[in-house]
Amino acid sequence: MPKLKSDIGFFFNPKSIAVIGASPTPGKISNVIIESLKRAGFTGGTYPVNPKYKTVGDIKCYGSISEIGKEIDLAVIALPASLVPDALRGAGGMVKGAIIVSGGFKESGKVGISLEEQVRGIVENDGIRVMGPNCMGIYDTISKVDTFFIPADRIGRPKRGGISLLSQSGSFAGTMMDEMAYEGIGVARVISYGNRVDVGEAECLDFLAEDIDTRMVALYVESVDDGRLFVDAAARCAKKKPIVAVKVGKRGSGEAAARSHTGAMTGRYEIYRAAFRKAGIIEVGGYEELKEACKALSIYDPAPGRRVLIISDGGGIGVNLADSCEEQGLEVAGLGRELQNSLSSFLPSFCSVQNPIDLTGSVVDDWYVTALREGLSDDYDMAILALMWGPPQLSERLIDRICYAIKELKKPVIICTPGGEFAKGMNRILGERGVPVFTTPESAARAAAVLARD
Amino acid sequence: MPKLKSDIGFFFNPKSIAVIGASPTPGKISNVIIESLKRAGFTGGTYPVNPKYKTVGDIKCYGSISEIGKEIDLAVIALPASLVPDALRGAGGMVKGAIIVSGGFKESGKVGISLEEQVRGIVENDGIRVMGPNCMGIYDTISKVDTFFIPADRIGRPKRGGISLLSQSGSFAGTMMDEMAYEGIGVARVISYGNRVDVGEAECLDFLAEDIDTRMVALYVESVDDGRLFVDAAARCAKKKPIVAVKVGKRGSGEAAARSHTGAMTGRYEIYRAAFRKAGIIEVGGYEELKEACKALSIYDPAPGRRVLIISDGGGIGVNLADSCEEQGLEVAGLGRELQNSLSSFLPSFCSVQNPIDLTGSVVDDWYVTALREGLSDDYDMAILALMWGPPQLSERLIDRICYAIKELKKPVIICTPGGEFAKGMNRILGERGVPVFTTPESAARAAAVLARD
Repeated sequence: MPKLKSDIGFFFNPKSIAVIGASPTPGKISNVIIESLKRAGFTGGTYPVNPKYKTVGDIKCYGSISEIGKEIDLAVIALPASLVPDALRGAGGMVKGAIIVSGGFKESGKVGISLEEQVRGIVENDGIRVMGPNCMGIYDTISKVDTFFIPADRIGRPKRGGISLLSQSGSFAGTMMDEMAYEGIGVARVISYGNRVDVGEAECLDFLAEDIDTRMVALYVESVDDGRLFVDAAARCAKKKPIVAVKVGKRGSGEAAARSHTGAMTGRYEIYRAAFRKAGIIEVGGYEELKEACKALSIYDPAPGRRVLIISDGGGIGVNLADSCEEQGLEVAGLGRELQNSLSSFLPSFCSVQNPIDLTGSVVDDWYVTALREGLSDDYDMAILALMWGPPQLSERLIDRICYAIKELKKPVIICTPGGEFAKGMNRILGERGVPVFTTPESAARAAAVLARD
Repeated sequence: MPKLKSDIGFFFNPKSIAVIGASPTPGKISNVIIESLKRAGFTGGTYPVNPKYKTVGDIKCYGSISEIGKEIDLAVIALPASLVPDALRGAGGMVKGAIIVSGGFKESGKVGISLEEQVRGIVENDGIRVMGPNCMGIYDTISKVDTFFIPADRIGRPKRGGISLLSQSGSFAGTMMDEMAYEGIGVARVISYGNRVDVGEAECLDFLAEDIDTRMVALYVESVDDGRLFVDAAARCAKKKPIVAVKVGKRGSGEAAARSHTGAMTGRYEIYRAAFRKAGIIEVGGYEELKEACKALSIYDPAPGRRVLIISDGGGIGVNLADSCEEQGLEVAGLGRELQNSLSSFLPSFCSVQNPIDLTGSVVDDWYVTALREGLSDDYDMAILALMWGPPQLSERLIDRICYAIKELKKPVIICTPGGEFAKGMNRILGERGVPVFTTPESAARAAAVLARD
């Protein structure tokens, strides 16, 4: 009789991890995983399993799972696909769940499909929970689990933060992690679940909904296995925290590519759109917008409305930004009479006191701070500063003052700063201070639009 | 009787430059310009003019233009707006043309409007040619003229290359220059013409059309002064080299902002769209797309068609890229039977031999090179490589081989590599080797679409 499925929480809080197919050879998948667990600071037990070795690095290696002599929460299986079913069967009763990182299953043709069916049978009969196959598994800054088997010098590991990323594609997740590490954006849990023979998006969403370390969920979807389960779980989760999703394989070629990628039948895009809308998911177009959305939503709560104030010291970029905001459906509402008067009394007459406010190249720090404070005290929902660092009187102290103002004003403030060396240096500082920075007017406007979704 | 207007070519090849309002104080606009001319390596004569000083730095300073005692090609006027008309009048007969970088004219209200009218009168009566006012002037890697008055540590100066940028907005042009300098993209001439009291886009386009150093023209437009002149000049230019244009101030708020920015009446956006189309201009959405278009078109000629081949080693990004390409109107056409067979005989069975070609995380350099060579030998117009550097067997040598293949194949190849530290390092090398690299699938697809315009 099939056993009842257990809760998947242990994947994100394992006390012990067995690595099946462990190898002492640097660069091998299993070896990278063992090294990553060490580097990440995983404090549970790590148990390499391989009858060929006595030790892996400085850790004792076991001939089989049963040799370990205690119940193991999580087995990471890094074996050739053909050996996976036996290994999984052998773990039965001793292991709560397994992450099968190996490829060579449904995505790769006939033999793979049959192997995947065997894995599915074992899951159903033995009650063992499985993530994968054909996946990267979990990178978790809270539990310190890291099964992403690409060394950190190729794929950086982000610091701890509030974003959890749920992705069918391992390379998509890994690339996103790498870029977030580079930009100093923090994550909670990254989950690459690949072919989804068992654990899928619905269960993960239920877990993430309750997870206090997850502030927002980013979702990469080629397909979902059960539409109703997915929509229900997503709706539950979206009530508690924002979910931003990318559906790929939208049309002809992408759809076919997705099928050969994770064996996913992507289905008609329109159905997904409707499902996302129903569940309260914020849909974005692709990698670019997902990254932008993560940047904004990991820092700010969604805004109650779409009224955006633009402040600029470079007219051209300011006008471009106004266009972009309107294209994104934001409202670049004109300044009220009172606000206009109060700003006019403070700013020189050559500044343009409309929306965008153009402080011109003669700008000094004070003008920015005053415009921001007075502007956001009015009924705007957020502000975008098109902050060009060319004007020579702008100083780095402005960054402190902007950060302080954001804290007090309690409304989202987004920075738009294109440019080179100097600008990127300032962007880095702002980013480290927790202010979301974008390098084109278009990307700033897209991010603002995500915040303004209602 | 008004004098005949002279050709504007001397702006881009002056033998002598007078800087009127020259100051020895570092950081002052006029001083930055004198320093920039020196740093850029301008070999013509530089003549500071200011009755208050005997020298500026180590250069002799003159009390007036007439004191210099010879005809001057170009005067750069960096004086308060109220002093500009007299200075311009005083230069009459001794100077071919002037760049008025000062602000405080039409863009700033009543007094400014009247000052601008005076300047216009002088232009019409004396035949002196004027660029500006309220502009940054010229940055020119061929003539070594640099009147962009923001020091190079704030706004980087790009190396010599084939892009010429024509922009009403100085900050837009400066920001673009700064970013191109950072990314190693080269420019020929950058022209910020501001309020356009005399020299405008039509004459500049006529100059750039004939300019052998200009390979493509990038255009930032808030408004044009004479629609018919503009369309005619643009059409002449577009027959010789690609023109990519951004129209800003498209809608309500942006339109109003543009008016206060350079005093431009932006007019109905639809009229501009039609004019661009008629002239054969490639219209793009804003700063982001203009930068992307510059990157692609400064390296590759436009492609004869829209058939794009995608090669990837990260399935998810590959599928995303296929979606993005189709959204941009590109044709992600499936592989022909013959190509499919020949690739299948070379690649392992777990690779996906469709379009996108997915080489998977097991990829080695050879697979990329073979897929690219065989693929582009077929009837694709261009290729995009979604090149993830996570797969450990990919080596830096791949870059050499890709560059070599591009040279032989003579079709555009675009790289799409998102990611962090390692990826950005590889991107830098590829960029220096003259391969256009983009960091999101969406931006790569947008750039490819620009190349495919017909």
